[in-house]
Amino acid sequence: MHSFQHNARTKIDHHLQKLISQSNDLPYSPLFLAARYSLLSPGKRLRPMLVLAVCESFGIDQDHALIPACALEMIHTYSLIHDDLPCMDDDDLRRGKPTLHKVYPEWHALLTGDFLLTYAFEILSTAPYLNADQKLALVNSLAKHAGAHGMIGGQMIDLLSEGEAIDWKVLEQMHLGKTSGLIIAALEFGGIISGASSDALESLHKAGSAIGIAFQLIDDVLDYTGSQETLGKTIGSDRERSKATAVSLLGLEETRVKAEALLQMAKANLMTLPHSMPLLGMLFNQMIHRES
Amino acid sequence: MHSFQHNARTKIDHHLQKLISQSNDLPYSPLFLAARYSLLSPGKRLRPMLVLAVCESFGIDQDHALIPACALEMIHTYSLIHDDLPCMDDDDLRRGKPTLHKVYPEWHALLTGDFLLTYAFEILSTAPYLNADQKLALVNSLAKHAGAHGMIGGQMIDLLSEGEAIDWKVLEQMHLGKTSGLIIAALEFGGIISGASSDALESLHKAGSAIGIAFQLIDDVLDYTGSQETLGKTIGSDRERSKATAVSLLGLEETRVKAEALLQMAKANLMTLPHSMPLLGMLFNQMIHRES
Repeated sequence: MHSFQHNARTKIDHHLQKLISQSNDLPYSPLFLAARYSLLSPGKRLRPMLVLAVCESFGIDQDHALIPACALEMIHTYSLIHDDLPCMDDDDLRRGKPTLHKVYPEWHALLTGDFLLTYAFEILSTAPYLNADQKLALVNSLAKHAGAHGMIGGQMIDLLSEGEAIDWKVLEQMHLGKTSGLIIAALEFGGIISGASSDALESLHKAGSAIGIAFQLIDDVLDYTGSQETLGKTIGSDRERSKATAVSLLGLEETRVKAEALLQMAKANLMTLPHSMPLLGMLFNQMIHRES
Repeated sequence: MHSFQHNARTKIDHHLQKLISQSNDLPYSPLFLAARYSLLSPGKRLRPMLVLAVCESFGIDQDHALIPACALEMIHTYSLIHDDLPCMDDDDLRRGKPTLHKVYPEWHALLTGDFLLTYAFEILSTAPYLNADQKLALVNSLAKHAGAHGMIGGQMIDLLSEGEAIDWKVLEQMHLGKTSGLIIAALEFGGIISGASSDALESLHKAGSAIGIAFQLIDDVLDYTGSQETLGKTIGSDRERSKATAVSLLGLEETRVKAEALLQMAKANLMTLPHSMPLLGMLFNQMIHRES
C-alpha cells in the first residue's frame, strides 16, 4: 500500500474511533456499540481517502478534511446497514463479518443506520478549520448526492428493477446514483475544503460520475467471477435475485472494456484541474484494477 | 382554530406540496409519491407551527421560517415511517390511514424515510432569507435533537425497555429524547431565524424540554383513555406490548397533574424572553388540553 494510503487510513480510523467513542450511558452505549461494529469493520475507506487525496494535491493540510471525510464514511456505512436489512437485500455477510442485523435485533440495526445518517450532518456542521460557507457547501453536497438525486434514488431504481428487464440506460442511471453519488460527494468535498473554483468543482464532479460507474462495473464483474473469500460478502447474490447487472447486459468482456474507458475519461477530467492529481490517479487505477 | 393556525397551516401545506412536487421521472416518482402519502396526511403540523409562532412574536416574517419549518415536519414524518415498520412498533394505522409499509413494500417505506431525513438537511442548506451562520445553526440544531442525544436516542431507550421494568427517570429521559427532541428543535429554529440571543435560545430550549414531556404524558393518558376513532391510530398498543408508560408508573391522575405542572414551567420559561409569546402560550395550552 502507498504510504499516503497507509497514513490516511490510520488518521481516518483514529478519527472514526474518536467520533463514536465508547460510552457507558444510555442511550449512547447500545447505539455507539452497534455503530462501531459496522463503522470500524475493515472497509476500504475509499470515500474518505478520495477526500484526502484531493486536498493533498491542492496543498491543503489533511487535518482540515478529516471530519468531513469521516462524515462520508458514516453515510456509506449507514447505507450498507440499511441495504443489508431483510426487507432490502437481505444479506448475511458484509466486510467478512455477519451483517449488523444478524448481531443485533433488526430494529437496532435500522436505528443505528438512522443515527449514522443524522450524525454525519452534525459533525459537518461543526467541522474545524472551515468557514460557514464551506461547511454549508459540504452539507448541501452530501444531502444532494446521498438523497433522491443520488444514492437513495439509485437504490430505489435498484429495488424497483428486481426481476424486471432493464436496459443499459436505466442501469447506468442506477449506478450513477447508488455508487457514483458518494464518490462525487467525496471529490466535491475535497474541492470545497481546498477552496476550489466552480470550474474545478465541475471537473471533480465529472470525474466522480465516470469513476463511480466504472467502480460499480468492476463490482459486477467481481460478483460474477470472484469468490466469497476474497470479497468478504455473499457473492452471486445479484444473479440469485435475478437482478440485471452490467455483466448480464453487456457480457464480461464489454463490461471490462467500458470500465477501462470510463477510467480514462475520469483521468481526463482530472487533467483540467489547476493542480496535478497523482494520488487521485493512483486511487482511480486501484478502484478499477482490483481483485476484491 | 385560531386564524394564525389556519394561515400557518395553509402556508406549511403549500410549501410541503411544492418541496415534494409530483414527478413522472425515475427515481423521483416512486419516492415522492410515497413521501407525499405520509407527509401530506392530515397531521397536526405542530412542530412547524411552533417555529412560525416564535418568529411571529419576534416580529419576523413567516416566509423566512417556512422552509426550515417544513424540514422539521419531514424529520417528524420520517421518524413515524420508520417507527411504524414491522421491526419497530409494527403499527398498521397512522393519522387515520394505513401506515406507509401497508401501502408500499416495506423496503419502499424504509427508503422513503431515509429520503425525507436526508432531504430535510438539503433544504435547510439552501433555505432563503437566512445567512450561512443561521443555516448552519439550523443544521446543527436539527442533527443534534433528531440524533443520539435526542429523538433517535429516545427511540433506542423505548425499544430497549420493552417488557422491562423501568422507573420514572428512564421514562423521562426517553420522552426528553423521543418527544421533546424535535419540539426543542422547533423552538430553537424559531429563535435562530429570529436572531435571538443565546440567553433567549436557552429559554426556548428549556420551554421545549418541559412542554415536550408534558405533551407525551398527555399522549400516554389518551392512549389509556381515548378511542381509536378520535386518535386515528391503534390505541392501547403500548399496554399490549407491556411498555411502561407514565400512566402505568404514576397513575392517571398524577400523570395529568405532572403534565399541568410542566405546562406552567414551560410558560414560565417563555416569560424570560424579550418578547411576549401569546401564540406559543396558546399552542402550549392546546398541546396539553386536548382530546386527541
